[in-house]
Order: sequence, then C-alpha cells, then structure tokens
Amino acid sequence: MEPRADAGLAFALQYENVAWYESGAVRILDRRVYPQVRFVTCRSHGEVAQAIADMVTQSAGPFTACAMGMALAAWECRDRSGTEQLTYLKQAAHTLSHARPTTVGRMELITGGCLAAAERALAEGRPVPEAIRDHTVHANNVRYRKVERMGAYLADLLPDGGKVLTQCYAETVLGMFLKAARAQNKRLKIFCAETRPYFQGARLTATVCRDMGFDTTVITDNMPAYVMEREGIDLFTSAADAICLDGTVVNKVGTFQIAIAANYLGVPYYVTGAPDRGMRTRADVTIEMRDPEFTLQAMGVRTAARGVKGYYPAFDITPPSLVTGVVTDQGIYRPAELEKYFASGALGEFEMVI
Amino acid sequence: MEPRADAGLAFALQYENVAWYESGAVRILDRRVYPQVRFVTCRSHGEVAQAIADMVTQSAGPFTACAMGMALAAWECRDRSGTEQLTYLKQAAHTLSHARPTTVGRMELITGGCLAAAERALAEGRPVPEAIRDHTVHANNVRYRKVERMGAYLADLLPDGGKVLTQCYAETVLGMFLKAARAQNKRLKIFCAETRPYFQGARLTATVCRDMGFDTTVITDNMPAYVMEREGIDLFTSAADAICLDGTVVNKVGTFQIAIAANYLGVPYYVTGAPDRGMRTRADVTIEMRDPEFTLQAMGVRTAARGVKGYYPAFDITPPSLVTGVVTDQGIYRPAELEKYFASGALGEFEMVI
Repeated sequence: MEPRADAGLAFALQYENVAWYESGAVRILDRRVYPQVRFVTCRSHGEVAQAIADMVTQSAGPFTACAMGMALAAWECRDRSGTEQLTYLKQAAHTLSHARPTTVGRMELITGGCLAAAERALAEGRPVPEAIRDHTVHANNVRYRKVERMGAYLADLLPDGGKVLTQCYAETVLGMFLKAARAQNKRLKIFCAETRPYFQGARLTATVCRDMGFDTTVITDNMPAYVMEREGIDLFTSAADAICLDGTVVNKVGTFQIAIAANYLGVPYYVTGAPDRGMRTRADVTIEMRDPEFTLQAMGVRTAARGVKGYYPAFDITPPSLVTGVVTDQGIYRPAELEKYFASGALGEFEMVI
Repeated sequence: MEPRADAGLAFALQYENVAWYESGAVRILDRRVYPQVRFVTCRSHGEVAQAIADMVTQSAGPFTACAMGMALAAWECRDRSGTEQLTYLKQAAHTLSHARPTTVGRMELITGGCLAAAERALAEGRPVPEAIRDHTVHANNVRYRKVERMGAYLADLLPDGGKVLTQCYAETVLGMFLKAARAQNKRLKIFCAETRPYFQGARLTATVCRDMGFDTTVITDNMPAYVMEREGIDLFTSAADAICLDGTVVNKVGTFQIAIAANYLGVPYYVTGAPDRGMRTRADVTIEMRDPEFTLQAMGVRTAARGVKGYYPAFDITPPSLVTGVVTDQGIYRPAELEKYFASGALGEFEMVI
C-alpha cells in the first residue's frame, strides 16, 4: 500500500481541532462512530460537558472541547457586565472540568488558561468568545510542538523493522511518533489492541497507522501477551490520561494488564506524556466507573443474556514498577526520577505558555 | 433472580449431546449464535469435520461431534463388506480427528473407541452406526462422572462468598463445578471474560452461570487484571484444550495473559482437565491460526478500516510455572507432579472404558 503520510498526520492533528467554537455553537467530531464522520453540535457549555461525559471525543479531544466550551460559555453571557461574565465563566469552568472525574486536574489547567484569556479580552475590550478560541488554537500549537518532541524521543528507541504494540493510543503523539519514524526511515510493524468496549484501537489507532503507511495489525484484547511472545515485540507504548509524579500511569482499561505481561516477557513499556503536577501517587487518582450495560454489547449488538451484569471501569492504574520510561517533551525519565521533569522549568503537556 | 439450577445443569450437559446421529445425518447445535438456538445438519462425515473446523460447536462438543461423525461414516459405507467398512471408517477417523490441529491427540482417542465399537458390532452382526452412537453415549456418561469429580474438587477450593474469574469455560465442568458449589451452599460471584473474537465467555459461560443461579458479571478481555486487583478475586480457573504432562496448558487465547496477571497479583490459577498422555511439553503443541479477518469484526459488524490486517491464534500456551494446580478427576496435582496422575492407573478425560 502506498504511504499516505501527510494525509495521515493531517488527520491525526485534525482529530483534536474538530471541537470548534463558531457563532454560538461548538461542533465536535463524534469519535464513537469514526471512521464514519459525524459531528455533534452543542448549543450550550452544559451540552459540551455532557458530550465529554458521553465520550463523543477522546484522547486530547476533550481538552480542546472543554476550551471551546469555555468560548461558548462566554457567548452565552456576552450581554452581562464584565464582572458577571467572569463569575459565569468560573461556574462554566467548574462544570466543564468536572465532566469526567479522572481528568479534573488537566481540565482545570485548560479552563484556567481560558479564564486568563477572558480577563485580558475584557480589559482590552475585545470579544471574549473569539479570544478564548484563539487562545486555545495557540495553546494547542504549543502543545503540538511538545508532543512532536515526545514522538521523536519514542521513535529514537526503535530499530528499523521494529515491532510496536499499542493500546488505545492518543492520536497526536501517535501521528508525531510515526512522522518521526518515517523521517528516520524506520519501517515499523504496529500491533493495535482493539480496546474494548469502544474499539478505539481497531477504529482509531489502526486507521492512523495505516494512513501513515505502516504495516498495521489489529488484535483482540486477549492476545497481547501471546503476540509479544510469538512476534517478538520490541516495545509496548501507550499515552496516559494522567501520569502521577511517582510514575504511576492512569490510562484506558487494559493498560495495566498489558504492562504486567510486558514486564513478565521482558518487553519495555514506555508511556508518552508529561507528569501531572497535582497528582503525586495513585492515592490522588479517581477511577471513573461508567454504565456497566455498555460491556454487554459490541458495536451495538447485545452479547450477553438478560440477567447477566456488566462492569465498566474506564481506566486502570499501572504502578511505576511496570513502567520502563516516561517519554516527555524534555526527554525520557525513569519513573523514580520523574520529579526532575519540572526541576528544569518545564511545563506539563497541558500547561500553556500565554 | 430465582435460581434455575436444574434447567442450567441440564442445559450445560445438553450442550454436548446436541451433536447427535440419527438416520443418515448428524445435527449439531450451532454455538456460534447461542443463546439463539439453531442447528447445523451434516449429511456426511466430511461435513461434520468441516463443522468442527468452522467452530460450529466448542468445548467438549467437537469430541461428541467427531464420534457422531464416525456413526455417520458407518452409515455411508453400510452396504460394503465388513473389511471395506473398517477401511472406510479408518479414513473417516483420520479426516475427523484432524479437523483442528490442536486437538488431534484427543480426537484420536475418540475415533479409536469408535473403531473398536464398530469392530465388535460387525463381529456380532449389529448395525454399526447405532453401535457407535450407543458407545458414544456410554463414553460420555463415563466422562461426565469424571468431570463431576473435577467440579467437586474445584468447588472445595472456594469459600462461601468466593469470587471466581473464568475464561471461555467448558460447560460440562462449569455445570458440575457450580452444582457442587450449590450442594456445598456456597454463594459465588462469577466474573466471565467475554473471550473475543467469538464472545464465548459473554454468550455461553455467563448464560450457564446465570441459569445456575449465581451472581454473574461479564467483563471485557482487557479488564481481568484490574478486576482481580480491585474485586479481590479468590481464584482464576479455565478448562484446557490440551494439558501437557509437564503441566503446560493449551487453551483459548487469552488464558496466558490472565495467568500472567494472576501470578503477578497472587491469585491462584487452577486448570480443570486431565493431562494428555501423548503431549509431554509445549514442543508437542501446534497452535491453530484461524482466518485473520475474523478479528476485524465483532458480532458481525466490521470494526477496523480497510487495509488493516487481522491476526487470530485460536489458542495460547501457558507455562507450568503460572499454573497453581491441575484439577483432575483423581484430585489436584501441582504441574511438577502431574505424571503421577497416570501412575495410579487413571484414564484421561477422553480415554474411555469400553
């Protein structure tokens, strides 16, 4: 198959920009049905928070959606006084940042940046909704540059012909990682765990890898250990919904299990992302339990008989002892030395330079 | 929910008797669509071999189907001489026993018993097809008594209120295990990994557990490690498609990964079944690779984009070091002492007393 590298990367970056504020509405790409392209239109910041809770968007998408939701909130209160607008925006910030319990800290970094942008716009007499949107685009561009460095550090770890196992992998860093691998002329073979119950691995991760021109294989979630042993996987990698300062990784359920198997089989596990300043250990982590019925179906078709229960933790927790390295924009850290990341003055992935 | 113990066990046992020879045809319950009840009718032993290869039936079902296929082969050659009939039956035995590569040894035990029954019937002038069918029913009854003992040994390991994790669990031993647990007044909480790509755990295992009146929860295949840690699972158990004399377990793909996680988390893993006399180590195991496209769909709905590859090993191999005990009809053995099983004169699960 001919590589489609540029289209693929464009796609990968576009995923996160398709939460977009314009004229009193936020449009979000519905990744629950991707590769089918469909948008959800939100007419209030409350609807944006609900869309985030409903997992309309994933990976870094909820952070952009949250910021665009702040722009929409600014539109909602545009006719009030400046002080009243800020009060309204602070309430909206709370609603949006608490849409999902596991990411409150990262979301508050986003809403904090938006509030600062709103204050500046009010002081300068500029329209607040557009000011928040423009700030978000700028902040995302800053983040893309950080993620580009992460992707390059990760690509450096692999040989030409290397085999990589992924788990529900965030698209920006995946795109940047594969772009770097291409620049280094490395042909990689990528195995994507399908990542039940939403099949993000099969639907999203694998599509990006294919679009970037890489040999891509989807496996079911019970196969990673077997595939690591039989195929000789060089490296297991995932992004994270949160990384604690001690190297604990919070990510899509299944990561813990693959990390255990990787450790048993001697396959290194590298997580991409920056640590979260506010989270020291797993004691600071809240695992979101979602509608259990959702695990009793697949692609909308019921699997289990009536009277059988479901169970749906959205994330799991991987201890630092199973993490080989944290691939940040500042380089790769062992979990035990992760606090050094901030010592150099670095900002986390979602901490923006204004 | 009211317990439906008798219905459940009847169902569990019936699963394997629903490969049935009668008047020139074998009817097999199609477990690919269960709990929907549908039968596949085979008009030749070649069609029975194909149905086994196509996974129309599972668990111990293929062994009964193989034997009933031998009865059908006897019907096909009924007008030939006795010598010609035996020659024809030996060819049919080869076809049927080689329908799936991983179970050839166990299948040859089945076809060997059928050939002996055919020889006796020919010597005594009795109709051969019915003689093979009656032999099969008798052999299954002998096996049920063995499996009943296995189930009781397994139930003995659990406390009242115990929590059990299963993987694509064979229905006879599951039914016998739960029957014993009920007799011991043990309320168990059972978690069933859904077992992709066929969802046997969600469709079959969970239905039996529910019918037997137990608290039953289905989880996706990326959750076992998290559930073991969070819920405090007492025991992980599975059946096996083969158990080597050194304690190596060959079972539905996913078993290896759960066994690694169980070992990491200190949860014991007990496999039910008898060792296979002809298999000493993993060197004797052939892993069946099935149509890779099948992992790119779920319940008939496509999950991955075009151009993405699939990968489908039907089984995986769990080393003895991850197996706490092998629960046989003669008691529970550590893998290292498994060869003692035969020392007492015991016969394997599929070795029949004629």
